[in-house]
This record gives sequence, structure tokens and C-alpha cells, in this order.
Amino acid sequence: MFKLDSRLEQDTHHLTELGNNTLLLNKNACFYWFILVPHTAETELYKLPNDHQLEVLDFINKLSELIDTEFNIDKLNIATLGNVVAQLHIHIIGRRHNDVCWPNPIWGTSEFSNYTDADVELIKTLTTNLSTM
Amino acid sequence: MFKLDSRLEQDTHHLTELGNNTLLLNKNACFYWFILVPHTAETELYKLPNDHQLEVLDFINKLSELIDTEFNIDKLNIATLGNVVAQLHIHIIGRRHNDVCWPNPIWGTSEFSNYTDADVELIKTLTTNLSTM
Repeated sequence: MFKLDSRLEQDTHHLTELGNNTLLLNKNACFYWFILVPHTAETELYKLPNDHQLEVLDFINKLSELIDTEFNIDKLNIATLGNVVAQLHIHIIGRRHNDVCWPNPIWGTSEFSNYTDADVELIKTLTTNLSTM
Repeated sequence: MFKLDSRLEQDTHHLTELGNNTLLLNKNACFYWFILVPHTAETELYKLPNDHQLEVLDFINKLSELIDTEFNIDKLNIATLGNVVAQLHIHIIGRRHNDVCWPNPIWGTSEFSNYTDADVELIKTLTTNLSTM
């Protein structure tokens, strides 16, 4: 039975379910910061079963293309760290050359900006379509 | 014709060729910091052809398992950023709870430690076997 880590839940908006994974949007609107959470008790990507890995890769690809085409970004950053939150999760982040952290990685930044409810709804609509692509 | 980025070349030891990818070891021995460089002109992972993506995933898995089993690490960090060096490259990093950056990401750290030549040779031998697994 999958239960989202409380820190991930607190820091994000829930967007949609993509197969055996939950897609979240980090509340910090300084970046296009998505988080894909495979429903698994494993904490390392390489220990996921092959079919689940391929599903994760497929959604990383679809989400990457969506971010790249919809949000006018300059670079994608994709990472699975898990040093603070152990639950396996993958960051898929759209970066711009003029964002508050560029060219540094975004983790640990103190800069913060809120999404409007309308922004979140728009992004939710865009990402919900990923499950049927 | 593939040519390794000069910054990547300068910062790493060459380990081995894995299919259509070059495996490097970052010279900073504070971490088990491997870098896989697909031979491609694309700068975003999602734009790699599917068969190359699957090869990359396969080597990430094999290298992850090697790092996890050989080096007594606590967590793997896997990431493709490319904000500074545009050439597509994937970091696969073994972290320990007592390393100099834990639990922060390692990029940008000023801490540095050298490998001995013997260490590099040992790691080279271990990773060369990945291509035949």
C-alpha cells in the first residue's frame, strides 16, 4: 500500500497519477519543478523491477518534452537524490538562464515564489494528459 | 564523431567505453563520483533515440549496483544537469552519511581529495567488466 512521504506531501501540489507513479509539483514556482514518485518501497532506482523502470523512463520522457515545449525553458535538470527524503522520487525540473539559481542546482535555495491556483490548475490539466499519450 | 568536452576531460579520469558511452571518474575522491557520457550531440536525455536511452539505463543500473556493493555507500545520487557543461552527461554518485557534503548535493563543493593511481586502476578494472555483464 503506497503512502506518500509527509515532507513530499507538504512541499508539493498533487497533479496526477501516471501508471504506478504519483506526479507532484513542488510549491516553489521559481522553477518548473516536477517530482515523480514511483509506488515502491525501494529507495534506489536500480532496484526497481525492469517494467517499472521502463514506465518511469517513459513518463520522464513525456514530462521532459511537455516542460520543454510548454514553458519556454533553457535546460532540463533530472535527478534522484533521496538524501533528505528517503522515499524514491525523481526531480524533473525546467530551468531558465535567468532563474534565481542558474547555473547552480536548485536544492537548498532560500528563494521562493508561490503559484496561483490558476497556474496549478493549468499545469494539472497539461500533465493529466500524459497518462493517455 | 564524438569529442569529449574539455571541462569533463580535465576534471576526470577516463575509465572505460561502455557501448556508445564513455565512463569517467571525477578526480574528486571525496565521493564515488562517476560520469557517463553518451556519444550524442543531443543535450537533453529525452531526445536520445530509444535504444540509446535503454543502453544508458542498463549501464546506470549496472554501475549503481557496482557502487552499492563494492564501496559500502549509503545512498546513490543520479542526475543529469548540464547547466555548466552542455554536453549530455549523467552523474552516478555514491554517497556516505559522513561524506563532506552530506546530506547536500555535491555540486559546487570546495572540498577536494585526490585518488591514488592504485585507486584509479582498481576502479578502472571494476568498471571495465561492466561492458561484458
